Amino acid sequence: MGGSFALALKDQYANLEIIGYDHNDQHCIEALQLQLVDKITDDLETFYDRDLIILAIPVDGIIQVLQEFDSLPETTTLIDFGSTKKKIVDSVPPSIRKNFVAAHPMTGTEKFGPSAAIPDLYRGQVVVLCNIEESGEHQQKFAKKIFTDLGMKIFYMEAQEHDRHAAFISHMPHALSYALANTVMKQENPKAIIALAGGGFRDMSRIAKSSPNMWTDIFRQNKENLIRAVQCFKGELERCEALVTDEKWDELYTWMKEANKLHEIL
Amino acid sequence: MGGSFALALKDQYANLEIIGYDHNDQHCIEALQLQLVDKITDDLETFYDRDLIILAIPVDGIIQVLQEFDSLPETTTLIDFGSTKKKIVDSVPPSIRKNFVAAHPMTGTEKFGPSAAIPDLYRGQVVVLCNIEESGEHQQKFAKKIFTDLGMKIFYMEAQEHDRHAAFISHMPHALSYALANTVMKQENPKAIIALAGGGFRDMSRIAKSSPNMWTDIFRQNKENLIRAVQCFKGELERCEALVTDEKWDELYTWMKEANKLHEIL
Repeated sequence: MGGSFALALKDQYANLEIIGYDHNDQHCIEALQLQLVDKITDDLETFYDRDLIILAIPVDGIIQVLQEFDSLPETTTLIDFGSTKKKIVDSVPPSIRKNFVAAHPMTGTEKFGPSAAIPDLYRGQVVVLCNIEESGEHQQKFAKKIFTDLGMKIFYMEAQEHDRHAAFISHMPHALSYALANTVMKQENPKAIIALAGGGFRDMSRIAKSSPNMWTDIFRQNKENLIRAVQCFKGELERCEALVTDEKWDELYTWMKEANKLHEIL
Repeated sequence: MGGSFALALKDQYANLEIIGYDHNDQHCIEALQLQLVDKITDDLETFYDRDLIILAIPVDGIIQVLQEFDSLPETTTLIDFGSTKKKIVDSVPPSIRKNFVAAHPMTGTEKFGPSAAIPDLYRGQVVVLCNIEESGEHQQKFAKKIFTDLGMKIFYMEAQEHDRHAAFISHMPHALSYALANTVMKQENPKAIIALAGGGFRDMSRIAKSSPNMWTDIFRQNKENLIRAVQCFKGELERCEALVTDEKWDELYTWMKEANKLHEIL
């Protein structure tokens, strides 16, 4: 996410200086080699007087790093890209609350690390800004300008509402994809099964490739909403199972037809 | 499936005559307009002496149409493209068993009807041939030649084994996608949720667009295997749910890491 954002910023604006910070030394080397960043630092102090600081790291890491900033200049904007928002927003030190903008760009791929960076990851995609009225006036304008310049569609939402929605649209589907991959891998002859995979299975299992580091954090931070979404999903799946078991084919047809309607909205 | 196959055949071989047959008149008109077929017939007799007959229709329809053929010339090959195989293979009249080849091309899109036809749907994809030793020598050679010429990878399998595998790799994932779509559609504010959809959700819900006609038939024909696959999946999802509920984050990490391994095989 961070690497792709750096590429998008460089495409959009001239004369930027982008500084990278990562606890993984190999990622630092790769980011330099791929020219995602102009230099690397291992000192958070370096960022204090920059125009923009982006936290594109796992959600638990975001909360930790936020505590490192005691104060920031009025002109500094600090944006996080975390996939959960409530716990992050609650953890922001009051002294830097106006500097902070809570954002969730609804984009990404199952790949991660600097080598996964692609310049067009953000264009045309949605970004959710949470509790934006708590951010400073400059920071609100600055964040909106950047996301708009990069061609993103901005949605505004309370952090709590975001987390409920994100559980259904993103977090629970990741649980399904991981569970689907593990289901097939545990069969007697997974290779024979997987040899038959068509596009449907490939699509459904793609996000089961996602980083366990990142997703363990997200599941922890959005535990209650995730469990609720999983339970709703299980209800639907059990309805399908019951209709098949009881051979209620007309009702099964109607149930599938209902599902088709999603794509009138999506 | 049928339209795309016609396009692929026309790309590959010169001087073909392709005749279409469909109970849907509108589809007949479209297939002619799109030049998927050279003519349309409403009489199955027309096909008796052709080199190749392809049944690319819902699986219950395949079983019905197979009963219409009392006998076929030794040089005629009759191939079905059904997504289930056991009940189809069992239903073939003995008088045409040598003419018949049971095939399942593991490809397709969520779209259907003549307008969904694309010429490169088959190239590079897998086709499963079932109980091939029951087909005539000419039919075996002919079918293998066509699928090879079209750039497909051929797998051989017993019909029963195919249906077990297809339940895991294709039928159960369709149930998940339909259930996911219905889960989101039944929430209080589905539009607000769906507005946030990124690539993961789009991929996971794509096949929920599939034809209820076709998939009701498939679920009926592969009932037992489908239910078993759904139960295996539910076991995995419930494991995930329990790990989150009990806050066993290290075990959740390991569970996700296991799922990552799928992509070493896929």
